[in-house]
Formats: sequence, structure tokens, C-alpha cells
Amino acid sequence: MRIGIDAMGGDHAPVETVKGAVMALDAVAGTIVLFGFEDQIKAELKKYTYDQSRIEIVPTTEVVENEDKPVIAIKRKKDASMVVGLEQVRKGEIDAFISAGNTGALLAGGLLRVGRIRGVDRPALTTVFPTFKGMFILADVGANAECKARNLLEFGIMGSIYAKDVLSIDNPKVGLVNIGTEEGKGTPMISEAYQLLKESDLNFIGNVEARDIPEKQADVLVCDGFTGNVILKLTEGVAKSFMSEIKGIFMSNIISKLSAVIMKKNLKALKTKMDYTEYGGAPLLGVKAPIVKAHGSSNGKAFMNAIKYADKYVSNNIIEKISAQVLIDDEDEEQE
Amino acid sequence: MRIGIDAMGGDHAPVETVKGAVMALDAVAGTIVLFGFEDQIKAELKKYTYDQSRIEIVPTTEVVENEDKPVIAIKRKKDASMVVGLEQVRKGEIDAFISAGNTGALLAGGLLRVGRIRGVDRPALTTVFPTFKGMFILADVGANAECKARNLLEFGIMGSIYAKDVLSIDNPKVGLVNIGTEEGKGTPMISEAYQLLKESDLNFIGNVEARDIPEKQADVLVCDGFTGNVILKLTEGVAKSFMSEIKGIFMSNIISKLSAVIMKKNLKALKTKMDYTEYGGAPLLGVKAPIVKAHGSSNGKAFMNAIKYADKYVSNNIIEKISAQVLIDDEDEEQE
Repeated sequence: MRIGIDAMGGDHAPVETVKGAVMALDAVAGTIVLFGFEDQIKAELKKYTYDQSRIEIVPTTEVVENEDKPVIAIKRKKDASMVVGLEQVRKGEIDAFISAGNTGALLAGGLLRVGRIRGVDRPALTTVFPTFKGMFILADVGANAECKARNLLEFGIMGSIYAKDVLSIDNPKVGLVNIGTEEGKGTPMISEAYQLLKESDLNFIGNVEARDIPEKQADVLVCDGFTGNVILKLTEGVAKSFMSEIKGIFMSNIISKLSAVIMKKNLKALKTKMDYTEYGGAPLLGVKAPIVKAHGSSNGKAFMNAIKYADKYVSNNIIEKISAQVLIDDEDEEQE
Repeated sequence: MRIGIDAMGGDHAPVETVKGAVMALDAVAGTIVLFGFEDQIKAELKKYTYDQSRIEIVPTTEVVENEDKPVIAIKRKKDASMVVGLEQVRKGEIDAFISAGNTGALLAGGLLRVGRIRGVDRPALTTVFPTFKGMFILADVGANAECKARNLLEFGIMGSIYAKDVLSIDNPKVGLVNIGTEEGKGTPMISEAYQLLKESDLNFIGNVEARDIPEKQADVLVCDGFTGNVILKLTEGVAKSFMSEIKGIFMSNIISKLSAVIMKKNLKALKTKMDYTEYGGAPLLGVKAPIVKAHGSSNGKAFMNAIKYADKYVSNNIIEKISAQVLIDDEDEEQE
């Protein structure tokens, strides 16, 4: 197994990308391949003692910046760490590719350079979403701002396979984000998606209202990418504002400061439960090779976890399973 | 001024509706008109000492239930408290009507029985959204699951008028919910709405990402009703799950329980800041008479606040101002 990382991607690259790669050596077998500026990567690697035979560098001379226009960057920056990594995962020179860089560019690169699995209309950016009640998969979170009903069914199929085989959730429950619990709620597209999901072989539990998302009713929650992006970022924003208020309360006087010290462990646990770094980033499901988007602000631990999950993604043959499933489904839908 | 309340609407009706009506007598001038089962309302009113000349009862014999199909309920339950109330506000027998009952029915009733202001394509269900940084107006939160760009501009116009004249916000900042901050992000509809807002006379500040919603960057935030409903309910859900976790932490041992007692005031302040009951419900903007949806779980205080804001809604001539503004705007758009 060879897992590639865009060493130049993310807010703390290459410090944290390299750190994560070294940390991951204990968690996975095989080789980690770092794409990026050779000098910088080597300088970072010097900080650690590790099995040098298991980390390789593929030197590249360009970087896709967050400000770059996705499609243009992918087409023009041919020697960017992200672009070379995508090229290698396409050719099978590496088995999976992880980047915390420009999300749009990674999506565009996944579509343009790696390509869709036959039968998949729209690949989904899928994230593992933490709640106090446990995690679930949310798809799509931004690859497809506008969706057809058919896409939401595909997200459910792909998300279920990932939930089952990578996250070890048996018979994953699939929910549809909607503005009411009853059948027929929402836009015409959502109503149609409801019917498709209901008629599918998925373990469909019906509509899930946004209010109940933190209650984790489903293991896989599907929605269009606009809604998913709003859900992901709003949860992050509300959680952040709460943590900041709580911190303020604890810092308000001597006694509350003392309480904070006493409750430190519990407060930390609260934070950990909502910690996205635990679940290893957002797989782009529906492309022909395992590509994972890590959060821009990922630290070493987040990259290590992304590598761990990418390893499971590969070794459980998720791509082949998705491919087999969507083809069956495609034959069912031949009238389309 | 005569403000009507659906005494039978909401989870705690008529106990809390009547309580709110009595409480409101100190906050507003004029008469409160209660629509509902006469016996039950009278029994509740008996609990209080108040100026009897200022509360009237309009006896009705039916109730729109939460399970009722909105349009059917509005058409068939002609003597329901909600339907009679809507009829009276249409005729001008009352100046405003508040209900915490079936949201869909109130919307349908607003459209079918009261009707749109000339020039308004789609009325919006608008809520005052609390954050730790202050409140803002969110429109639409569920009246229009699917929207055209033009509708979002209207929500901005109507929301700005309400923000300025009812909530006393000078030159309200208008933001567009989007999945990126840059112009051109989102669906084609959202991009088009961006252009319309940018070219309008509104104080448009551009896109607001969901992550920044709790930071209250805008005074009026516009989006389609599907997205708005998700934002409203998800915030509620995340806040609830946080409060419950925090409570759990404080209850975990003797010392933390003691801390909770000491910090009670601050913790209560935390809750108050996020308290939707402070801002008096969700006005349906764009219909010909002031109609306000109160939260289903409203208590007396929430109803009192709803009455207070309905009073401002009427006395500041919001309907006339919306009407004047959309007509100007309509003339500008005559090519349509």
C-alpha cells in the first residue's frame, strides 16, 4: 500500500503534513509518499526519528493556492503537489491521495484528472460528522451545490458502502435532510429523492429535520451540496460560539476559574467529541481512485487519521464496491 | 389598536396564550382579542386580575391541528380560531393576528385568505434569530422551499424595512447565505440573487458563510426557505445538544455541582442570549395584513413579546412601507 499526501496543502503545511505522515507510520503498513517542495519536506522530516524506508518524497515545484481558480489551477499548474499526486493516484502509482489544499481544485482535479466511476453521475464530497451522540456521514458537503434526486440516491449508496466498510457500521441507516418529517415535504427534487431512497435497497429511515441532526438519527445523511455545506459550517460556527461563551463564563471570576480547572477533563471531553480531526477528513466518493480532502486547518493528528482511514478505504475495496453497486442500479434505471 | 391571538394555537394553548395576552396589557395600548373555545379561555382568564375592558373573546368552535393538511384545514375548518382570526385581520376588524399553531396552515391562510401585497411575488416567513452577538433577521425560514433570485431580493427589501422600523436597526446590513464568500459562489439562482442584491439600494454586504452566521455579520440574512429552515432548526438543535452536554458536565460530581450553583447567573445569561422568546415570533412579510407565527412551544412571555412586536409592526406601517418599496422596485423591473 502506498498512500500519498499533498505535503504543501493546508494552513500548516508542510509542518503538520509531514508530522502526520511520520505519526501514521505506526498506524498503517506500507509507504507514505509526500508530494511537495523537497527541501522543505526534508527539513521537516529531519525533526523525527522514523523508518526512512517507509517515507518517500516526490519533488514538485508548484503549489495550488487557496486563491487559485480550481479548474485553471488544475490545468496549468502541472507540477503542483496536488496535481502530481492526483496524476499518480490515477495511474495507480499510489493507492490513495490526501490533500488539505484548495477544496475546489481537489474536486475539479478528481473529476478532470481521475474521473468518475462508470455509473456515478456526480461524485460527492462526504464528511464524517461528529456529534455528542456519535458520528455519521454527511454527503454531499459542497461538491454539487445543485443536485438531481438521482444524485441523492447515489450519495446514499456510496455513503452506505463507506459507512459499512470503512467505519464498520452494520446496516447503516440512511436519512434525507428535509424541512419536515412527513413524506412529501421539501422541494420537488427532495420529494423525488425520498421516493428513490424509499424504493432502494438502502436502510432508508426517511426525512431528518435539521433540529435532529445533532441527535444522530441516521448513519448516512444525504442532501445537496449547498445544504450539506451549510450544515457542516453552521454546526462548526455554533459549536465555536458556544465554546467561546462557555470559556468566558469560566473565566469570569476566581471561583469559576477554579471550577474550570476541576472540570478540565470533562470540558476537554466535550471538545473531543466534536473533534473532526478524529475521523480523517472527507472522502470524495464516486471517483475512480481514493481521494480524501483533509480540513484546511488539519494538524498532524488529523493527517494521521486521514491516512488511517485512507488505508481502510483502499484495503476494503470501496471503489470496486461502489462501482458494482451503481452499475446494478444503473441497469435498474435503464429507462432513463 | 386591536391585536388578535389564536388562543388555541401552540403546545401550551390556551394556558400560555391567555397568560401572554394578560401580560401584554402592560406592554401595549389597545385591546387584545382572543380567538378560541370560550369556556376554556374564560377559565384561564379567571386566574388573573386585569383590565377586563381590554381583552375580548371571539368564540370559535374548531381548531386547526398540527396534523391537519394546511390548505384543506384553511378551506374546511371555517370556524377554527386560526381561520376566523385570519378573516378578521383581512377585514381590518383586528390590526394584527398572532398564532403559534400549524405553520403551514397559517402560511396558506395568509396567502389564500389575506393575500399578497401587490408587487410581492412570494411572502416570506421571517424570524428574528438570536446569537451571542445579538439578533438578526433571517428570511425565508420555510414559506418557500424553492425560490427564484427575485424572491431573495424581495426578502432583503422586506426584511430591511422590518429591521429598521420594528427592531430599530439603522441602515440594516443585508447578507446572502452562501457556501463561499466570493461573488459567483453557489447555485446559479444564488449567483443571480447576488447580482440583484448588489444592484439594489439595500446595504448589501455580500455572501455570508454558514460558519459566520453565529457571528452576526448581517442584520438581515436572506436565503431560500429550505436553507433558512435548516439554519433555524440546526442552530436550535446544536444549541440544545450543547446545553445538555454542559448540564451533564456540571452534574458530574459534587464540586462541579457547586460550581454550577455559583455560576448559575452566568449560565442563565447564556441561555437568555439564545432565547427566541425575546423577539416575538416570525412575521409573515409580504401579505396584506400583519400576521405573526409564534413558536409552537411559546410560553406566556413569548406571546407577550409577540404582541409587543406585532404592535410595532402595525404602528410603524410596515405593510404600507413594503407596498411602496416593492412597487417602486416593480416599475424598475418592467422589462420582466
